[in-house]
Formats: sequence, C-alpha cells, structure tokens
Amino acid sequence: MTDFLFGPKQLLRLWLAAGSGLLLAACAAPPSDVISLKDMGSFFVGGREVTISGKPVKEMLLTPGGAPTKIDPNGVYQVEQAYVQYFIPARQRGKLPLLMWHGGGLSGVEYETTPDGRDGWLNIFLKRGWAVYNADAVERGRAGWAMYPDIFRSEPVFVTKNNPFERFRIGAGPGSYNKDMSQARALPGNQFPLEGYDNFTKQLVPRWTTTDEAILAAYIALVDKVCPCVVLAHSQAGQFAYRAAQARPDKVKALVLVEPSAQGDPQQAAILRNTPLVSIYGDYIEQDARWPVIKANNLKFYEVLRAAGGQPEVINLPQRGIRGNGHMMMMDRNNQEVAEVINQWLTAKGFYQ
Amino acid sequence: MTDFLFGPKQLLRLWLAAGSGLLLAACAAPPSDVISLKDMGSFFVGGREVTISGKPVKEMLLTPGGAPTKIDPNGVYQVEQAYVQYFIPARQRGKLPLLMWHGGGLSGVEYETTPDGRDGWLNIFLKRGWAVYNADAVERGRAGWAMYPDIFRSEPVFVTKNNPFERFRIGAGPGSYNKDMSQARALPGNQFPLEGYDNFTKQLVPRWTTTDEAILAAYIALVDKVCPCVVLAHSQAGQFAYRAAQARPDKVKALVLVEPSAQGDPQQAAILRNTPLVSIYGDYIEQDARWPVIKANNLKFYEVLRAAGGQPEVINLPQRGIRGNGHMMMMDRNNQEVAEVINQWLTAKGFYQ
Repeated sequence: MTDFLFGPKQLLRLWLAAGSGLLLAACAAPPSDVISLKDMGSFFVGGREVTISGKPVKEMLLTPGGAPTKIDPNGVYQVEQAYVQYFIPARQRGKLPLLMWHGGGLSGVEYETTPDGRDGWLNIFLKRGWAVYNADAVERGRAGWAMYPDIFRSEPVFVTKNNPFERFRIGAGPGSYNKDMSQARALPGNQFPLEGYDNFTKQLVPRWTTTDEAILAAYIALVDKVCPCVVLAHSQAGQFAYRAAQARPDKVKALVLVEPSAQGDPQQAAILRNTPLVSIYGDYIEQDARWPVIKANNLKFYEVLRAAGGQPEVINLPQRGIRGNGHMMMMDRNNQEVAEVINQWLTAKGFYQ
Repeated sequence: MTDFLFGPKQLLRLWLAAGSGLLLAACAAPPSDVISLKDMGSFFVGGREVTISGKPVKEMLLTPGGAPTKIDPNGVYQVEQAYVQYFIPARQRGKLPLLMWHGGGLSGVEYETTPDGRDGWLNIFLKRGWAVYNADAVERGRAGWAMYPDIFRSEPVFVTKNNPFERFRIGAGPGSYNKDMSQARALPGNQFPLEGYDNFTKQLVPRWTTTDEAILAAYIALVDKVCPCVVLAHSQAGQFAYRAAQARPDKVKALVLVEPSAQGDPQQAAILRNTPLVSIYGDYIEQDARWPVIKANNLKFYEVLRAAGGQPEVINLPQRGIRGNGHMMMMDRNNQEVAEVINQWLTAKGFYQ
C-alpha cells in the first residue's frame, strides 16, 4: 500500500490531469479551420460516343518547334459526360452525400472560393461534415464540350461582363453595370462582394441551350453512382434536380433548390410527393423584370406538387430578416448565414446530426 | 481511503488503460491516408477584356418554361484567364509551392484521380506535404474559352478517342486502338491502366493552336501571384514552364518537365543557367515515329543551356529500371514510383525536407 507516493484521491486527480494533459498535448483537436479529408478526387459520369465522317484530314503543329501531327477529324468522339470532384470529410455529420449542381453559364467553381476570396459553400458544407460532390455539367468547365453544329445542334451562348450584374439582381437591372464598381448602380444593401465582381466574370463559361437532355442524362448517371443523396441545385440546375429526382425518387432523398429557373415534369409531380424539398429565394424579386415570372413558375409547379400530396417548402430569406441576397447567394457576403439556413432545414428533415 | 473500489495499483492500471484507451479512441493519429488541409480553394489569374460590336441582339429562352431573356452579343467580354485550384497541407514538407501545369487537349484533371480510380499526382504530392496549385490553362476546362474567330483566331481542335492511345505511347502507334481493350495493341508492358482508357477519354477537352501567348501570359500572372515555387509541367506546358521561368527567373526556382513538347527561347537560355531543371522521359521513345524528334528538340535546347552555363538534367526512367511508362505517366499504374523519382530529385535540390 506504500508503493506509491499518492493516495487514491491524488491519483484520481493525477489521472484526470495527466489524461486531459495528454489529450491536449498529444492530440490537440486541430484548429477548427483545418479540413480533414478521408478522401478527395474526381471522376466523370455519363456521356456517349458519336461518329463523325466525311471530313478532310488536317496536319497540324500543336506546339511551336514540335513535330507536326496528323489530326483526322473523322472517327469516334467521347461526348456529353459530366465532371465531378468530391471531398469526403474524416468525420461525416451529413447522413448522405451532398451533390452541388451549378447554374447556367457557370461551372462548379461557383461553389468554391468566393470572388473576394472567402470560403464558398463547398468549403462551408465540407467543414460542417458533409461529403460534397461538386459537378461541372455536360459542356461546362472540365466536362469539355463537343463540336457544333455536328454534335451540339446550336451555337454556344457567351455573356458580356455586364450581363450577370444586371440579370442576377446584383445591380438595378439593365444599364446598372459599370466596370468601375463605385459608379455601378448596385441594388441597395446588396450582399454581393462588389470588389470581386470583375474577378467573378472570369468564371463565366460558354453554354448551349440545346443540351438539357444530355445534362440530365449525365446527372442521372451521377445519382446512380453516388446516391442516396441530397441534391443542392442552383438556377438552371433546378430543372435537372427536379427531373433527376423524378427519375430516381428512391435515390434523391431531398432537394434544396436555390432560385430554380425551371421545374420537373408536372405530369409526374406525384413521384415527388414524399421527397422533402425547399426552394430558397433572395431579395429584390418583386422589383425585378424577370424574377417574379421565374418564381411564379416554380410556385405553379408547387401547386401541382401539393395537389399530388407533396409538401414543397419555400424559404424567402427577406422574410427571415436576411436581406440583400441576389441570385449568386452562395458567394454573397452572408453566404455563411444562407448556408446555415439550408443546414438547419436539412437538420430538421433528419439529414444532419 | 475507502472512497474507491480499487487500490492504487489497480488505479494505475486503470489510469494506463484508460489513458491509452482515451488516446486511441478520442484522438488516434489519423490514418496515414487522411489528408489534413490548412486551406483549399480556387482562383483565376490573368485575362483581359475584349469588346465585340456590330452583332444583332438575340432573344433566347435559356431554360424551358423560364422567362425569355435578351442576349446582346455586343459588349465587353472577359477572356484568357487561367483557373487554379490549390490545396495547402496542414504540415508542409515541400519548401515551396508546387505548381502543376497540364498537357495539350487536357486540363488539371490529368493530375487528379487516375482513370482507374487511384490517387493521381495531385493527391500523391499533397500527401507528401507539398502545397499544390493545379491549373486549367487559358481556354481549357474551368478557365472557359472565347468566341472564335472573333477573339480566338483559329478553330478548336478535337481529338478522337483513338488519338491519345496511338499518340501518347499507350498503344503501338497508328491503328493500335480498339474500343475493346483486349483487342487493342497496347505497347508490351505498358503501365497505362487500360481498363480506364475509355474513362480517360472523358477528360479530353478541345484546344486551340493559336493561344500560346495568352496561356503564357496567364501562367506568368500565376507565378507572380504564388511564387517563389517549383513548376511541374507536362507536354505542351513544357514551353510555358521554360518561358515563364525565363520571364521570372527569381520566382520559378526549379522546373520538372515531364516529356516537354516544346522549349523556351534559346536566345535567352542564359537566364536559366542557375535554375535546377530536369526532364523526365518514359519508355518506348526510340521506337516511336514522333517522340525521338520531340525529345531531340529538348536535348538541343539543353545544349544551348549548357553552353550558357546551365546544368539541365535528364531522367530516362527505363535507365533506372522503371519500364512501361508512356506520355501519361502521372496516371500510369506505377505513378507513385515516378512521383517518388521526382520527389527524390526535388529533395536532392533542397526543395523538400
């Protein structure tokens, strides 16, 4: 009984002190801003082969000083795949993977670092413990694109630098853009980081208007590969999210629609009656020329959904006192606050713990 | 003395057991394959504005059921930026950031997950403690591209599915490709993961042959932003790496050139005389129709460099007993082994600890 210098009480204190000391010293929790990943990587989904014939062979010098190489444009092309980058946190709190689908004329970059250098929703949701799959849709970004009019049936659309400013409820409509942001007419109280607007225009990519079915097919292939899941879709991707959920109701377990610009098939609305879904709207909708129509189309689809037994929800951020958000809310100054609204909704639906 | 059920010896055992148990349970060292990041994100560099005028305004329906929107093609476009994604490990062992520049007709995807699902060089170097900046060059992938012939002066080049197989020393030259890989004539002992070849073709992107100066300008902007650094460049990017190093010799501290397809300015070779640089070559060069020329051009540039006082190095992998590598060695089955060769070279030059 005298093997030790301390009695049981002292030993208990020592145990507690040493135990917590060891914990603090040997394995202090990493600072909260460290991202610990079990895995990260990328893959492609979907796509098809197309054969082109009857075109002349070209001899090209691909790099100056290099060896000339024959490029035969005839043959089989791989087209219409989507690109997906994924990040799996070491400690997952989201019960399902969170798929992020970007808006038109953009790529998965919209969810990455904001144009003024803050965390985008990719990092924000990842740090909260969601496994995030961030896609570039068919013909956007790293997904590549196919020759036109041979494969894609129309010409691509390019937008000028003023276009998103005036169309995405950052500025006060047509004519409000000015490269000198101090001279631009931003909507009052707008949360877009105006000092990053010029930088934001660098992430615009050409887009087609005749590729919807190809985009949807690749997204369904993605759902088949990684779901059950939650799909978070922005703008143009709203229709793909609705339609992918209608095609795979057993796999798309919830939809978060950020100002969706189009909807699913109303004839098949009943398929979504048990799918929790919410549409998120920012500020300045009523005063805009186009957004009341876009929103009304979605609410019309909601009526059909409700008649079929569904319970679609709407979150109007201004009604919760969150003001100043335009169409690019994932990169607004208060993007953390908007992400929190989404995370709370997902928590309430049982997808986050 | 009877406050406890255990005596001091038992308490000591309990303390040891509980202490180590706690350590194991609450804070076991993360498995070696966990990636701990201090930061990750993306940004754009470079680019310029171009004004287009004299074209008719179009009214377009961007999504079915959406509101029609006027697209005025006249105006100011943002063009010729590069996209960069970065990953900063929590514990850095590379003394400088490692910039990865991809080859022609590809994007930064070439360094990500291999087409058969293994870690690519991005993950491999990151796990070794390098801060990695992985770029999409101007007009590739997420960098977007500009309208032609208005802004880019030529048409884009698309390659067929057989092209890389026959041109990148995976298969035995023209005619060796077959979609059924068991029927394709791969080079004997080739390390390319043939089961992933079809998947690999999904990462091919269109490319132009008239954008070299724009690509270089954006890469120099990248160097100005994040260097001093080491640049690892593949194929087409060889010339950009040499030329960026010639433009910024104080910032590009070392060059790793993976089968570079073109070089820098021989008139300015002396600028690189103090820059450690190495070119890495795989297998099957001599038997190929094009690669002896491409390699000879690089060795010719080396002669000029040596005459100017430089000490450029060559690593021929087969001479080190590493066989079977084609042009896409960053995704070959032995890509870890090739990465280790590069890491050892960088260690020997003092850039890794």
